[in-house]
Amino acid sequence: METTLRKDVIVACIQFEPIVGSVAANREAMERQIRAAQAGGASIVVLPELADSGYVFEDENELAAQASPVPGGATSTLLCNLSRELNIVVVSGLAERDGDAFFNTAIVCGPDGFVGKYRKLHLWNEEKRYFRSGDLGLPVFDTPLGRIGVAICYDGWFPETFRQLTLNGALLVCVPTNWVPMPGGDLQPEPMANVLHKAAAHSNGVYIACADRIGTERGQSFLGRSVILGPTGWPVAGPASADRAEIIFAKLELGAVAAGRRLSVFNDLISDRRSDVYG
Amino acid sequence: METTLRKDVIVACIQFEPIVGSVAANREAMERQIRAAQAGGASIVVLPELADSGYVFEDENELAAQASPVPGGATSTLLCNLSRELNIVVVSGLAERDGDAFFNTAIVCGPDGFVGKYRKLHLWNEEKRYFRSGDLGLPVFDTPLGRIGVAICYDGWFPETFRQLTLNGALLVCVPTNWVPMPGGDLQPEPMANVLHKAAAHSNGVYIACADRIGTERGQSFLGRSVILGPTGWPVAGPASADRAEIIFAKLELGAVAAGRRLSVFNDLISDRRSDVYG
Repeated sequence: METTLRKDVIVACIQFEPIVGSVAANREAMERQIRAAQAGGASIVVLPELADSGYVFEDENELAAQASPVPGGATSTLLCNLSRELNIVVVSGLAERDGDAFFNTAIVCGPDGFVGKYRKLHLWNEEKRYFRSGDLGLPVFDTPLGRIGVAICYDGWFPETFRQLTLNGALLVCVPTNWVPMPGGDLQPEPMANVLHKAAAHSNGVYIACADRIGTERGQSFLGRSVILGPTGWPVAGPASADRAEIIFAKLELGAVAAGRRLSVFNDLISDRRSDVYG
Repeated sequence: METTLRKDVIVACIQFEPIVGSVAANREAMERQIRAAQAGGASIVVLPELADSGYVFEDENELAAQASPVPGGATSTLLCNLSRELNIVVVSGLAERDGDAFFNTAIVCGPDGFVGKYRKLHLWNEEKRYFRSGDLGLPVFDTPLGRIGVAICYDGWFPETFRQLTLNGALLVCVPTNWVPMPGGDLQPEPMANVLHKAAAHSNGVYIACADRIGTERGQSFLGRSVILGPTGWPVAGPASADRAEIIFAKLELGAVAAGRRLSVFNDLISDRRSDVYG
């Protein structure tokens, strides 16, 4: 299916500090910043992973007190109503409750409300104690702005994630994230997370918009440095600071993505794949 | 199969300028520098792509005059004899003739002579006019130093390359290369080639040793900046200069590769893969 591409797509990534245990305050912060991003011209807004719940749970009860159904729960309803009211696409991480199971989920909402959801496939560290692994594969979503995919944080350590989304037609991958320092040294001079996403944007020829959180929660620090990468792999906005709440904006040329993959007269990043060798 | 790992593996990457049309002089330069690398302590030596032939051919006749069988041809025999004499592993790019076909090939030689060869899977730009695409898949090679894989230049634009080699047990991927500037801007502040290989080393938890050429040939410039990346993705040697002949050396801890992939108590970069989703 071909998607129609608007020429004036501006994406915004919201970098802020969700507070664990303060779901109502987090929702207020999300709403305030989504309105600010839209006022700044954004037609698609990306928020961090687990933006409504915070990240470092004391125990499952703390998570249970904040997680909500997707769609239909309080966070989903807020975001879908905002998307409708403001005529934008919103992609946000949130804590999902599904019966007695919990997922580290991203919701996609658009001008017509709920579009779909993605459940994080690759769980990081103690997330494995609280969340079930994603069971919805790697869906892509057709929005009025074009086809998009979603990946969450540690998903980006697996190049298969971006490859699958690209092969399924995503022109932009939205990445709600809570990046933490890597063992063995990081930040030389940028976080390895930024390196991984530059490489993924370049080798797939796609836009990638990463919205990270900031702050330190129960001893766990987060990296900030939200960034929007163009299909060449180089930033078109950011990286943002390591420690300040900010919104970064970039204009996307989604209609130029396919042409950008033709690196020479003889080469195309997608058709040059040797699927006979590696599938 | 488990390979025995020596503790004192030093890899060297030789960065130099092959001269197109001067295959005898190139072989002399290769021999001189392999001896220098071994004298500097190297037990495995990597040379650039097409190190014996140069890169920008005027026509097929010019390539034909320089290409030789692998093994058995002049370059292969030189490299295998040197590997035996010096008790080292050599991985080098060279122009291969096979009947009336040509391949952009890398040879692997060890203390017992010829080990194997790899034929570049992903051909760049006008290479498609002269060379056939690789037809040997992505082999790994068991050497006295451990299991290694080989990728050549544009192969590195396809994350599947490093993933397959890693899943097949390579602890070190040797990359003979002739990196050229990417369209749409590069060098911000490092070549995208360096970014791609950092990401590949990190996300697979493997060593990657890239030996690039320097110089400008018939208007085509090359990037230099040879680099040896550790399994964290960060350089353990280099990047080398953009324009000087150099040899860079790094000591490898091949026995620590598997442990390095365990990024947390709950995580392992290989077993965390969601092969149920993407194969």
